[in-house]
Amino acid sequence: VDRFEPNLRIPGPTALPPTVREVGGRQMINHRGPEFAAMLSRILDGMRPFFGTSREVAMLSCAGTGGLEAAIVNTLSPGDRVLAVSIGAFGDRFAKIASVYGADVAKLDVEWGHAAEPVAVREALSSQGPFRAVLLTHNETSTGVMNPIPELAAAIRETSPHTLILVDSVSALGAVPFAMDDWGIDLVVTGSQKAWMSAPGLAMVAASERGWAAMETARMPRFYLDLRRHRESHAGGETPWTPALAVVFQVDEGIRLMQAEGADSVFARHEACAAATRAGLEALGFELFADARHASRTVTCVRLAEGVEWKALNTAVKKRGVVVAGGQGKLAGQVFRVGHLGSVTVEEILGTIAALEAVALEQGRDVEPGAAVGAAQAAALASRGVGRAAAATA
Amino acid sequence: VDRFEPNLRIPGPTALPPTVREVGGRQMINHRGPEFAAMLSRILDGMRPFFGTSREVAMLSCAGTGGLEAAIVNTLSPGDRVLAVSIGAFGDRFAKIASVYGADVAKLDVEWGHAAEPVAVREALSSQGPFRAVLLTHNETSTGVMNPIPELAAAIRETSPHTLILVDSVSALGAVPFAMDDWGIDLVVTGSQKAWMSAPGLAMVAASERGWAAMETARMPRFYLDLRRHRESHAGGETPWTPALAVVFQVDEGIRLMQAEGADSVFARHEACAAATRAGLEALGFELFADARHASRTVTCVRLAEGVEWKALNTAVKKRGVVVAGGQGKLAGQVFRVGHLGSVTVEEILGTIAALEAVALEQGRDVEPGAAVGAAQAAALASRGVGRAAAATA
Repeated sequence: VDRFEPNLRIPGPTALPPTVREVGGRQMINHRGPEFAAMLSRILDGMRPFFGTSREVAMLSCAGTGGLEAAIVNTLSPGDRVLAVSIGAFGDRFAKIASVYGADVAKLDVEWGHAAEPVAVREALSSQGPFRAVLLTHNETSTGVMNPIPELAAAIRETSPHTLILVDSVSALGAVPFAMDDWGIDLVVTGSQKAWMSAPGLAMVAASERGWAAMETARMPRFYLDLRRHRESHAGGETPWTPALAVVFQVDEGIRLMQAEGADSVFARHEACAAATRAGLEALGFELFADARHASRTVTCVRLAEGVEWKALNTAVKKRGVVVAGGQGKLAGQVFRVGHLGSVTVEEILGTIAALEAVALEQGRDVEPGAAVGAAQAAALASRGVGRAAAATA
Repeated sequence: VDRFEPNLRIPGPTALPPTVREVGGRQMINHRGPEFAAMLSRILDGMRPFFGTSREVAMLSCAGTGGLEAAIVNTLSPGDRVLAVSIGAFGDRFAKIASVYGADVAKLDVEWGHAAEPVAVREALSSQGPFRAVLLTHNETSTGVMNPIPELAAAIRETSPHTLILVDSVSALGAVPFAMDDWGIDLVVTGSQKAWMSAPGLAMVAASERGWAAMETARMPRFYLDLRRHRESHAGGETPWTPALAVVFQVDEGIRLMQAEGADSVFARHEACAAATRAGLEALGFELFADARHASRTVTCVRLAEGVEWKALNTAVKKRGVVVAGGQGKLAGQVFRVGHLGSVTVEEILGTIAALEAVALEQGRDVEPGAAVGAAQAAALASRGVGRAAAATA
């Protein structure tokens, strides 16, 4: 155990606030009793505004990937044609799950680092459709790109009014605004270890009326991840199988903290942290991997600067108590990623940039001491409307 | 929050020891880093002797039911003939999962309260076989019956040498001896919230060489619960998807405590607690639901005595800080259950019996004050070889 708590800047699991840690150490309770029922209903009610839905939310005991599998197997039948819009490793995974369960998957592969363009999706639907479902990634954790979900959903609805829109928002929902009812999303998935500031182990899934109706006829096999069984059990204050209770305690506290802070403040904090991360990394000479128009507000991915090796960089920042993530899949060794979601403050981002700045100086790179940290701070303030840059654009 | 810690006597989630609670409140770490790899290997190595195997153990982030689904979907193909030996609600669930995924399931239904007889299984195999797999429940949590797994496995091997033997030991493994390699079991499942003294959220699965070989040709669809993906990832010190990290911390500590106590002591403690529970409940006039020859060593199920209502009983014992479980499925309102697995002491069982005794007196039932507690204590001591009863049978 370290002398100082590490600055955990991976894109999940995210750091736990002190009170969330505390409840993680609670004694077990009967998951078929009234205390659990009250907690479950607080959680599901508390999540609804973040999902932007007036309908049921289901809580599954699994990782985000289990949630993606639930999205597929509950709404589709073998042979269904599916358009999988992939902008990175998690988009590829979503497509793979659909294939494994027998969907007829057409992939729309977008160059990594870019978002999907509504016009490209519209074109794919017109030329290759009809499709039973379109799979979208909200925030692509592998590339640090955030897709414009409302624009993409509008393009899909315009072209194919009855096609199901299934969204992986594991690493975005709760940290950025989401309005599934208004946007016409049919099913969306999120995970406890991201914006919800809790340990991994729970996936939350909400569906539209069309989404729930699809489950009545979908023929892919399912049992453990059956959403209708969850909905039915939740109505009675329970889960169909024993839930990951320690994580349920944590999510209950995580949502309480988010409600106390206020959704708008949560979103603004994520914006400020993202702006600070990008500005700091750029000032250190790292090139942002994501198209600037669609840079993620929860994770930043940058190319390793010329002559900077991932392993050496990782070891050096770790010594300073900062834990960042390497590249995923085909980006391994080419990029690194800084997570800024969940329980994250601008001060933690400044600490991350400070560590990277010190390492850069140690490695003899040409950086001005304090410049990157200053740039990060200025960007955070500007995102809050403070400072010269903000005044100039106001 | 109560003034006193409740005496949680449900058959899972089981109570957490203090140090397991503590690590449940740990800060998150990188699940793709060396600290996690070391922990995972400690856990998997530490579990192997309890499974009685020299082969790989896989750790899935799901409830025990997810582990049962993994057992089915990884080893079978749609259309495979399966003999599901059911002695209660969990046996029915195991059979149901196989049906949902397209297996051709023949059920051998044993009257609830009884164990499966090797001769009945042999007869079913001869008259209805061949079968690709037999599903067995080790400990049936709904009825408090423990199946004689080695005898059943021997009967199956004798009749059908190549049939897969898949065992649900969610609520037994770790609390009682298990020797999967010696007994010829092909796959066995357990859950973190039972003998392992941790929160729910992890299922551990081990397979024989025949079991792993079956996965190469099994055609039921699987992704999240794919055991081969887990085995491959575990070999590199990781899990394929983000693990339920807080529960991983707990299981790591739970196994450390079990190793410190020693497997034989763990098993003897469970025996003593089971004996005490049975003797105490009988002295209170409750009839044991399970056939005495196959009474479970982890959960006891008793019929509600004449004139005793479940709701009133539950409310009254809860007031005294004891949490027991009601009847499941068709036994609701007819029985109640006392869990004695994981972190359980004879003293906690005596406290449970004391509460039930006090409630019985309060309800005007004809019981001798102190008699049931005394009977429980004597039974626990006898199981340890102490006292007159033990001396008489020695």
